[in-house]
Amino acid sequence: MKYSKLFGKTVREAPTSASITSHKLLYQAGFIRESTSGHYYLLPLGLRVNQKIIQIIKEEMDKAGAQELVTPVLHPIELWEETKRTSTVNLELTKLKDRRGTGYVLGGTAEEMIVDLVRKFQLSYKDLPFNIYQFSTKFRDEFRARGGLLRAREFTMKDAYSFSRDEKEFEKEYKKMANTYINIFKRFGLEAKMVLADNGYIGGEYAHELVVDSVIGESRYLESDDGKYIAHEDVAKFKRDEINLDEKEKKFEIIKQPEWVQTMDDFAKHYKLPKSHFLKNVVYRNITTNELIIAVIRGDLEVNKVKLEHTVDAVGQLIEANEEDLKKIHTKTGYVHSWDHKGVTYIGDLSLKTAKNLIGGQKEEKTDSINVNYGRDFKCEKLTDIAIAKDGYITEDGKHKLKTKKGIEAGNIFQLGYHYSKKMKGATYVDKDGSLKQYYMGCYGIGLGRNIATIVEKYNDENGIIWPISVSPYQMHLISLEEDKNVLEKSEKIYRLLTDNGIEVLWDERKGVSAGVKFHDADLIGIPIRLVVSNKSLSQNGIELKLRSEQKTDIIKFENIVNTIKVKISDLGNQLKV
Amino acid sequence: MKYSKLFGKTVREAPTSASITSHKLLYQAGFIRESTSGHYYLLPLGLRVNQKIIQIIKEEMDKAGAQELVTPVLHPIELWEETKRTSTVNLELTKLKDRRGTGYVLGGTAEEMIVDLVRKFQLSYKDLPFNIYQFSTKFRDEFRARGGLLRAREFTMKDAYSFSRDEKEFEKEYKKMANTYINIFKRFGLEAKMVLADNGYIGGEYAHELVVDSVIGESRYLESDDGKYIAHEDVAKFKRDEINLDEKEKKFEIIKQPEWVQTMDDFAKHYKLPKSHFLKNVVYRNITTNELIIAVIRGDLEVNKVKLEHTVDAVGQLIEANEEDLKKIHTKTGYVHSWDHKGVTYIGDLSLKTAKNLIGGQKEEKTDSINVNYGRDFKCEKLTDIAIAKDGYITEDGKHKLKTKKGIEAGNIFQLGYHYSKKMKGATYVDKDGSLKQYYMGCYGIGLGRNIATIVEKYNDENGIIWPISVSPYQMHLISLEEDKNVLEKSEKIYRLLTDNGIEVLWDERKGVSAGVKFHDADLIGIPIRLVVSNKSLSQNGIELKLRSEQKTDIIKFENIVNTIKVKISDLGNQLKV
Repeated sequence: MKYSKLFGKTVREAPTSASITSHKLLYQAGFIRESTSGHYYLLPLGLRVNQKIIQIIKEEMDKAGAQELVTPVLHPIELWEETKRTSTVNLELTKLKDRRGTGYVLGGTAEEMIVDLVRKFQLSYKDLPFNIYQFSTKFRDEFRARGGLLRAREFTMKDAYSFSRDEKEFEKEYKKMANTYINIFKRFGLEAKMVLADNGYIGGEYAHELVVDSVIGESRYLESDDGKYIAHEDVAKFKRDEINLDEKEKKFEIIKQPEWVQTMDDFAKHYKLPKSHFLKNVVYRNITTNELIIAVIRGDLEVNKVKLEHTVDAVGQLIEANEEDLKKIHTKTGYVHSWDHKGVTYIGDLSLKTAKNLIGGQKEEKTDSINVNYGRDFKCEKLTDIAIAKDGYITEDGKHKLKTKKGIEAGNIFQLGYHYSKKMKGATYVDKDGSLKQYYMGCYGIGLGRNIATIVEKYNDENGIIWPISVSPYQMHLISLEEDKNVLEKSEKIYRLLTDNGIEVLWDERKGVSAGVKFHDADLIGIPIRLVVSNKSLSQNGIELKLRSEQKTDIIKFENIVNTIKVKISDLGNQLKV
Repeated sequence: MKYSKLFGKTVREAPTSASITSHKLLYQAGFIRESTSGHYYLLPLGLRVNQKIIQIIKEEMDKAGAQELVTPVLHPIELWEETKRTSTVNLELTKLKDRRGTGYVLGGTAEEMIVDLVRKFQLSYKDLPFNIYQFSTKFRDEFRARGGLLRAREFTMKDAYSFSRDEKEFEKEYKKMANTYINIFKRFGLEAKMVLADNGYIGGEYAHELVVDSVIGESRYLESDDGKYIAHEDVAKFKRDEINLDEKEKKFEIIKQPEWVQTMDDFAKHYKLPKSHFLKNVVYRNITTNELIIAVIRGDLEVNKVKLEHTVDAVGQLIEANEEDLKKIHTKTGYVHSWDHKGVTYIGDLSLKTAKNLIGGQKEEKTDSINVNYGRDFKCEKLTDIAIAKDGYITEDGKHKLKTKKGIEAGNIFQLGYHYSKKMKGATYVDKDGSLKQYYMGCYGIGLGRNIATIVEKYNDENGIIWPISVSPYQMHLISLEEDKNVLEKSEKIYRLLTDNGIEVLWDERKGVSAGVKFHDADLIGIPIRLVVSNKSLSQNGIELKLRSEQKTDIIKFENIVNTIKVKISDLGNQLKV
């Protein structure tokens, strides 16, 4: 490709709205442009990266025995109603109707569509297991889109769905997909960790995020210091420290308390005790049933909404209660009791049993309760794990320290189990004995644009992008430094020679553009191998070769060009082999 | 690919809703399934065909210097408002809003999106001409979807957009694209004709459909007997025959006329004259302005709405008037006058000047006018070509007969001129002299699914599909006829050997399935080369080779397999070379 003809050239400035490195660089180097917020054009350079990413994913998925197909983008809304996913919070679903009044959703994930396809076939046990996947445009109506391709409202996703006879058969597939994903990311130049995560609105019982560490990542997870336990903060378990279990249970009392004691900080100050000695209540409302749930927890801990939702079987259904909600149970913020509100569900955290003689739980304007002991003075409907794990906490077995880390969710894999096959009619296969059985499912997603952004986040310097060769838009950047006949003719020869040998070359043959600008643009675009044809190098009967990732330059002989470049490509590629 | 593992196997029956051959066969052979009406899944076999089609289009587009990119699927509605295309009839547009209230349309074509992208760059004359294209999902909210992939509501389209400095530069690009398209279709095995067509809601002044003849085609066009004039019936021109120009103009009269004379047939019967001796009026309403237009035409001809819309500059805006509309001008169906209605626009067809002493034009309950002569007794605002050309009519130069033909619109190319660059702000480039100029555009579309259907329409027999090798899901179908060890082991060897040599093989290794069923399925799926491994052929130390398109079978030696198959692939491919 001749650079002078390329649509979408470099520009000096990124838009002021771009705050993230990958967003800036992909914009400046001419890989992307934004349409409306969160909706992106991929320019020719960006599309080439995207196609390489697709090819790598396809190769690895096919190697794992998965088969590609494609579903429509418009999903009939009845399917989403069949699984009751139309009303889930956090599922950023766009609904629409066509002229005939048929309702659709813009698919953000395709479990229903795939099951609806699969149930059109009469499956026998011989057909199982199988795994089918697609690359298709997905939509997430996020309130806030973020930084370029990292969290877009519209993006290409590879989503795969596995169908197995039973849990055991599924587990093999799940492991295979985990490995496939690790390999895919490795080929992108990314090291991804398996982080235990929440299934959220996807459903099922367990899931993993494939996370690439990054300071700009939105996935916050906890890792034990021996590296054996890695879990997203939504699900991370930990051992609650024992505060004062050796204390004797004292007599429950209602005492006077100054009115200024309102927040947990006030309590600590007034009683001169750490926060772990107090009770804390957080109220949630189920948006579907309007039921109120009061989470009771030790004062130094925080409620994990995701864990709470699973506890009360209301995934994606809870929001924090407002004053209106509290009025219904005759209270207000700061005066919620740890017991005795009527018509609510009390859920307690395990931490309530790690401290004795707690303070709080029955605060009124001028009084509160002290020496409160769980079990003796009050009981919740359930006592379970509903707390957020934090940096420095201890693993469940008490042996290791947890550290909080941040990363980008490059992909995710979900056990779905019978979640969809139970909800959707006819999601069955005929087993050996002739009986109809529900199949056991899993699903596996990779957002393509997000991975492009992640690669750029990891591979860049102050001058621009440094593409891993596997996903670089071109393998080589050829620069004609000057515009005299000698240089241009020699360049054209090299361009033809290399492209005829199957090497992908971007050739900067612009006239009237300075050497500085050409070097600047080459650095910005970030193609890993650079060849420069100049009068200087030609006078030495050679061409200058430089890797984008290194400082040093070599002069190579014209007659060795093809081989040298092929070796370089192969060397760079070997680092990314799986 | 092992057939036993393939997702989406053959079935015996097509759905009753499938009336078209390609729809039936693609369903039965396991290439497609319908979601809701007009929205299709491409199963693994169908997707492979689609990918081959994409690859061929890509190769030919790239060869023509075009560059691939991709636009978002959701188009901001403001862009469509900017060009006033949101209100066009026949533009089957789906509109939607996201949670933040931003309005979008589901793109059916992307002129606005592409211009909006291009105008983000400061183009200089040096950047022109260029041509950018994409493969993306398009939506057409058709009231009636049709037969499988032929007219779907959601489909993948390759749409290209060219930008040139001026008309002359554009014309080169237009010709290049026409040739590129002919080549693309040739590589699919389709012979496409350039048919002059209407631009419709796309805008611009001229366009061509690339039409593949087919009895089930929806494109009706006229071709002169010397093959030099080919035009869609929307735009086809013809010479009106002269009826009685040698007659003297007689005296205009109002005469009595029996009440039963209502239709054109009644007129012919009552007056014992051919329909060409009468006047006919057809009334249309502009849906935006509500203006009424009366088209006046010779009784034997029919009004061409498309031509009429261009005449009154109301593309996509006219619908036939109803009784309500006619009431406003104090008349009703059958009693519209060829003159004197107030507040309407009269447009006459050229045919009005080819006959003298016409009858009609002022019909009342019991009277009508005779000896009506255009120019003497009445005049329209414009007298121009607003008639439909029909089979047997004569070319404009009077030398050739026109024949009506039917075909499928496999692609289309449009001159857009300044249509969009005038309507959209900033759609300019900086010319040599530093002045800002609007660019001259064209656009070029190919619907992928429709081409798959067209190929199947053309390549099939009573047993199934017969894929051209260029687009076949696999190049070879390998059948293990029996399930004993000898046959299966030999088959596996051949399967490995061929796939290792880069040949795409679908291997039917099913157990418990009869030879008859395997042959039946192979014929239905339609892969062009078939190899059968059986005890019988092995006893002859060979493998049976048969082309799907031929009856005869050959026995080839095991040691020659790779070469023989490669030669066959190459032979079949050569027929489709451009």
